[in-house]
Amino acid sequence: MIYLDNSATTIPYDEVLDVFIKVSKDYFGNPSSIHRLGSTAERLLTQARENVANILGCKPSEIIFTSGGSEGNNLAIKGVALFNKRRGNHIITSSIEHPSVEEACKQLEQLGFEVTYVKPDENGIVHIEDIKTAIRNETILVSIMHVNNEVGSVQPITEIGKLLKDYPKILFHVDHVQGVGKVPLHFPSANIDLCTISGHKFHGIKGTGIVYIRSGVELTQLISGGAQENSYRSGTENTAGAVAISKALRMTFENIDNKISKMNIIKRAFIDKLSADLPLITINTPNERSAPHIINFSINGLKSEVFVHMLEEQGIYVSTTSACSSKKQAPSKTLLAMGKNEQSANSSIRISLTHFNRVEDVDIVIKAIRDSLTKLEKIMR
Amino acid sequence: MIYLDNSATTIPYDEVLDVFIKVSKDYFGNPSSIHRLGSTAERLLTQARENVANILGCKPSEIIFTSGGSEGNNLAIKGVALFNKRRGNHIITSSIEHPSVEEACKQLEQLGFEVTYVKPDENGIVHIEDIKTAIRNETILVSIMHVNNEVGSVQPITEIGKLLKDYPKILFHVDHVQGVGKVPLHFPSANIDLCTISGHKFHGIKGTGIVYIRSGVELTQLISGGAQENSYRSGTENTAGAVAISKALRMTFENIDNKISKMNIIKRAFIDKLSADLPLITINTPNERSAPHIINFSINGLKSEVFVHMLEEQGIYVSTTSACSSKKQAPSKTLLAMGKNEQSANSSIRISLTHFNRVEDVDIVIKAIRDSLTKLEKIMR
Ligand SMILES: Cc1ncc(COP(=O)(O)O)c(C=O)c1O
Ligand SMILES: Cc1ncc(COP(=O)(O)O)c(C=O)c1O
Repeated sequence: MIYLDNSATTIPYDEVLDVFIKVSKDYFGNPSSIHRLGSTAERLLTQARENVANILGCKPSEIIFTSGGSEGNNLAIKGVALFNKRRGNHIITSSIEHPSVEEACKQLEQLGFEVTYVKPDENGIVHIEDIKTAIRNETILVSIMHVNNEVGSVQPITEIGKLLKDYPKILFHVDHVQGVGKVPLHFPSANIDLCTISGHKFHGIKGTGIVYIRSGVELTQLISGGAQENSYRSGTENTAGAVAISKALRMTFENIDNKISKMNIIKRAFIDKLSADLPLITINTPNERSAPHIINFSINGLKSEVFVHMLEEQGIYVSTTSACSSKKQAPSKTLLAMGKNEQSANSSIRISLTHFNRVEDVDIVIKAIRDSLTKLEKIMR
Repeated sequence: MIYLDNSATTIPYDEVLDVFIKVSKDYFGNPSSIHRLGSTAERLLTQARENVANILGCKPSEIIFTSGGSEGNNLAIKGVALFNKRRGNHIITSSIEHPSVEEACKQLEQLGFEVTYVKPDENGIVHIEDIKTAIRNETILVSIMHVNNEVGSVQPITEIGKLLKDYPKILFHVDHVQGVGKVPLHFPSANIDLCTISGHKFHGIKGTGIVYIRSGVELTQLISGGAQENSYRSGTENTAGAVAISKALRMTFENIDNKISKMNIIKRAFIDKLSADLPLITINTPNERSAPHIINFSINGLKSEVFVHMLEEQGIYVSTTSACSSKKQAPSKTLLAMGKNEQSANSSIRISLTHFNRVEDVDIVIKAIRDSLTKLEKIMR
């Protein structure tokens, strides 16, 4: 099996599963209980929070454990908007965000908020001037993803953060779900107020996530109740899940430069071979400012589903577009926003990597792609 | 160790942890991916949903997997209220609900909803007449817990459901978190529209939950995005978590009558011995209409924290009140609503059982309680 759908989800590290079981068994107490079983569980939770904060370069109190990326994005965006609605009703985001950002914004529109969806250029990059132009007196939030999940374009987060320093009323949220372990980002120095992370995208387990909330930022709780997680998110804490995501993050950040270099080498090899050998193929991932793990290309005249299944027969797993929208079979939103035509947006394939992928597999995959195309050409003739 | 804080949280079944690991490792694909790794994960998710529906006596499409009880309560209450706000702005609940219900209602009050908090009687039971009296033309939702988490009183859910049949505009939500495996409840025949369950309260793992949403009931998503979980809850599905909660539910429902009988025997023994031997103790759990697993009592003149720690020294784990509020050291809300005075509400101890507890342990615990009281009397003299 050659698994190249790591932007959809990743296989958990064994060590992460081991620690999840150990904590679930040996430290099952409710962290809110006042007896020893509670306080030992609480200590583990605190340690996990400290570990995460150390790795991300922020304070432990700024780390909130959630159930995943979609919850994080909804909490950050709706939480900030609802809390600040008296201060303004305008939000800026991009037109290539993940559905959990887009739909959260649409819900806010129904509640009377106005949202500007800034378009990217033909490389899938949002321009800082366009964000600046969109700013109004009523703007309270800018939400821009770090790495686009469909084509891998990297947005100018640090520059946007710098711009927003001049607008103290505007909070800045970043969907960093596809960036963790791939494109480094230091939240405080990028002037980020809120940032979303999802555990299962970097070999953690599903059902775990993190939101960074800068000290002093207030928001309306999505899940209210017992006031856990610094009153930002209620519910009995998933101690084992918190320890698991902290472990996955630590393992991902070990030798991270080597991991990123390796992915970059594989990505470069894929792009070079795909564009050199295969005339039907157009690379959609931009050459500059793109993440090390995503290679998106279109195959002229082909429905991408067909191709995913052909590769699957050969034990190679890729995807059409983001996993979320792949079942709806809608054309890739990001590709359309980049100005590609509908046909191209309907025939896109995404290869997404992790550091576990092997350089040696590139040729195997390229051969499988070539064989599949040959087969298809025969059928179509 | 004698663990008697099972209403705060329970130790997971070994089999639940095993299946969680197996699914996380062997079926790690994103259920939304269109390739085989996605579809096998999706099949597991479907099976888990079917299992749960079979056990609970409803349709698979009515089962939504969540991250826990607090999320479930917030989704049901805020989701229904926001979706139906044009049809009416009045909600009825009780004054002894879990904070995740109470705080969700308070958030809605800030958005212009009106909430009636019906008071229970001196036994902690809400009266159906009081609910009837509270109904207005604008009422859109009634939310009442099944089993109170502090004293174990069982609310007349089936009767309330029957009453609400005459009010087709009103949806009925039940917080069943403390009822699962303790007090049977058949959602459809009790005319329940939405019902919340939490995995870690019946030997499942933390970070898992279920909301039953009757076919046809619409609500505003708390977590919107990729439209997973029948469009009620977005985010990459926690396949392993869903299989784990379905397994925990199945194991809990095996020989459930025996399990309930055993808890009832232990509860009876505790109540008899506590009230017979120990003059300083008042039992707060009602004699009639109470769940088999909760025994709440007050110790005259004592701060309950002190007592929790004294028992802990002897390897016995009980709690002061609900785990959620125990750190705030607020007096028990339920006891105050039952008309107990503040002193009594500050000196309450909750013993909460599971079928793993042993009849033989009752005498050990009673002796420990007696010894602790003797020690305290000496100190105070
Ligand atoms: C960019 C981006 N944001 C958010 C999410 C949502 O994360 P999750 O699946 O953990 O809810 C994803 C993945 O699905 C993503 O790729
Ligand atoms: C009655 C009741 N409802 C809701 C909850 C919340 O469940 P969870 O801790 O899974 O968020 C609890 C337990 O904390 C409870 O006892």
